[in-house]
Amino acid sequence: MTEFIPPGTRWIDLPSPFAIKRGGALVSGRVAYETWGQLDPARGNAVLILTGLSPDAHAAASEADPSPGWWEAMVGPGKAIDTDRWYVVCVNTLGSCKGSSGPASIDPATGAPWRLAFPELSIEDIADAAAHVVRALGIAKLACVIGNSMGGMSALALLARHPGIARSHVNISGAARALPFSIAIRSLQREAIRLDPNWNNGDYDEAHYPESGMRMARKLGVITYRSALEWDGRFGRVRLDSDRRDGEDPFGLEFEVESYLEAHARRFVRNFDPNCYLYLSRSMDWFDLGESCAGTTEAGLAAIQVERALAIGVGTDILFPLQQQEQIADGLRAGGVQAEFLALPSPQGHDAFLVDFERFTPAVGGFLGAL
Amino acid sequence: MTEFIPPGTRWIDLPSPFAIKRGGALVSGRVAYETWGQLDPARGNAVLILTGLSPDAHAAASEADPSPGWWEAMVGPGKAIDTDRWYVVCVNTLGSCKGSSGPASIDPATGAPWRLAFPELSIEDIADAAAHVVRALGIAKLACVIGNSMGGMSALALLARHPGIARSHVNISGAARALPFSIAIRSLQREAIRLDPNWNNGDYDEAHYPESGMRMARKLGVITYRSALEWDGRFGRVRLDSDRRDGEDPFGLEFEVESYLEAHARRFVRNFDPNCYLYLSRSMDWFDLGESCAGTTEAGLAAIQVERALAIGVGTDILFPLQQQEQIADGLRAGGVQAEFLALPSPQGHDAFLVDFERFTPAVGGFLGAL
Repeated sequence: MTEFIPPGTRWIDLPSPFAIKRGGALVSGRVAYETWGQLDPARGNAVLILTGLSPDAHAAASEADPSPGWWEAMVGPGKAIDTDRWYVVCVNTLGSCKGSSGPASIDPATGAPWRLAFPELSIEDIADAAAHVVRALGIAKLACVIGNSMGGMSALALLARHPGIARSHVNISGAARALPFSIAIRSLQREAIRLDPNWNNGDYDEAHYPESGMRMARKLGVITYRSALEWDGRFGRVRLDSDRRDGEDPFGLEFEVESYLEAHARRFVRNFDPNCYLYLSRSMDWFDLGESCAGTTEAGLAAIQVERALAIGVGTDILFPLQQQEQIADGLRAGGVQAEFLALPSPQGHDAFLVDFERFTPAVGGFLGAL
Repeated sequence: MTEFIPPGTRWIDLPSPFAIKRGGALVSGRVAYETWGQLDPARGNAVLILTGLSPDAHAAASEADPSPGWWEAMVGPGKAIDTDRWYVVCVNTLGSCKGSSGPASIDPATGAPWRLAFPELSIEDIADAAAHVVRALGIAKLACVIGNSMGGMSALALLARHPGIARSHVNISGAARALPFSIAIRSLQREAIRLDPNWNNGDYDEAHYPESGMRMARKLGVITYRSALEWDGRFGRVRLDSDRRDGEDPFGLEFEVESYLEAHARRFVRNFDPNCYLYLSRSMDWFDLGESCAGTTEAGLAAIQVERALAIGVGTDILFPLQQQEQIADGLRAGGVQAEFLALPSPQGHDAFLVDFERFTPAVGGFLGAL
């Protein structure tokens, strides 16, 4: 049970108890966040970033933490999300292991980690926790809420459940509901973790850690985060040099693509808490904007009131496919929002927003610049 | 270690020793096959079917085994592969557990199953074994060789290594080489099996069987055999009725798509030998027609001499994507073959040839009918 908390992290306590959508309440919960830039006197220049499953709140370098953030190329002075103009807030997802309360943090009632006793978490809870941070920072209305991947789900839930919280919205490779292909992938990732004997119904420690399960889950993740097209060009059928292969293992790593997956998995497995992974993964499967808002996903989208919106997708994304971002733009437009849909020809699949800055910088920067 | 041998199976012994591409030789090997229809006096009406990873040689019902075969809708009197006209031969892949020699069959030198002592198997060995069956049945030249999925790889290897063995070729959802996305998927499937403690370096038995690993591998397989489009329509976000759910398990099956994967996996895990799965899976990763033929995949295709060919693909196939069947048709055409490429709009992905008979019947039947 380890948390991974960047040094620049600040916290805001949630109201206690904090009601949880599926029942129960979180006691003494808190949300980790970081900020960049200055809130203007009218408090009108705040931009909120909601993240995908694994990132922390450290989106970019700051005085408190000069190490590069996970969206360093996009957030900073003169960048697409320009901190000379905007007061940028990034929150760590409720339920994560990177500062916010979650299965890996301490349950104040017992003094021990929550583990599976943490309440059943929904995307809507993540959104409500983020809304509390926005209010606590004294922001009545965000200039924009930007959500990537799972954060695109959280952003829609935020807008639906907290009308008036933002003037505009950028949804990047997000979705208004989970579809069965993605549910199947995530279900299999969770099964890999749960099948690892070391998972032990959530009761593991560093010495007995579900490393194999996490490795499988992460590899499957990476397969669905990138694209076949990118890998054809990047790896083709190139083999590892013999000195990078285990000659004794007839089924050992042989192709560059296998080594790439292995390296990704090794970096991840001990840097994300397995129970938190299970909780956040499941929250995505449960998400359907229509369910809690208005009956259908389309009605849920049409009920959202912002002035402008941009839904960006990538044609090679198999996990949150392009039709889902088109659905968001269409649905918002049906409700009267000036909403645009932008399909980018990035080869990198779902993760393109983390790497294809040539395309994402003008897309996001152009939208914010015109606000 | 169990073999699964249909009752209508016949066998042909391989030459002993039978040379293996990557080194060594198979002693006392044999290939399981079934046939339908009559070989005409000129021996010119034979059609060979090469299968995907898991099917046996029982493609259709016969007198010896009236149970329906895995391609029952396509093979029979008056069907697309018309057994009133053609003498149809289906072989079980060398290395499989369904009658042909493989890791699950007995090594005559020891009297025990081969397990990992079975020679390292390549698609080319599968092709050579099939070629031997064709010769042993007295067939100098096949009217057509039809290969599905992995069988599409085997068919290309057969044509490349045994010039003149067939007048025509139908390649269905096949590929002339493995690409990194598919290699990544298969590598992960093999890892799931190998990580199962019961796999035990290949030394398992019925009581200690790598069931979890096989279940993971099969579920990942099914995810890549079908398509997101099909599942959106078929499952959407439908949940299981409460009586089909384990209320005690917070991460148990909840959505119909999860139950579908589970049912598929349960049918498979005890009906296919794990070591055979590893061998056949790896043979696909190794396959590149160019490697053993002429340096490049394109040159390998251009060297194949048949009169006519048809490469059929499905736009929703993520495992053997459409460009791979287009590459086959283009490559054969570059070598002077009258080759057609047919992209079918089936929603079912890679497995469409096993279910979308409305589209595959006219495609395959039309080609054979015009021979």
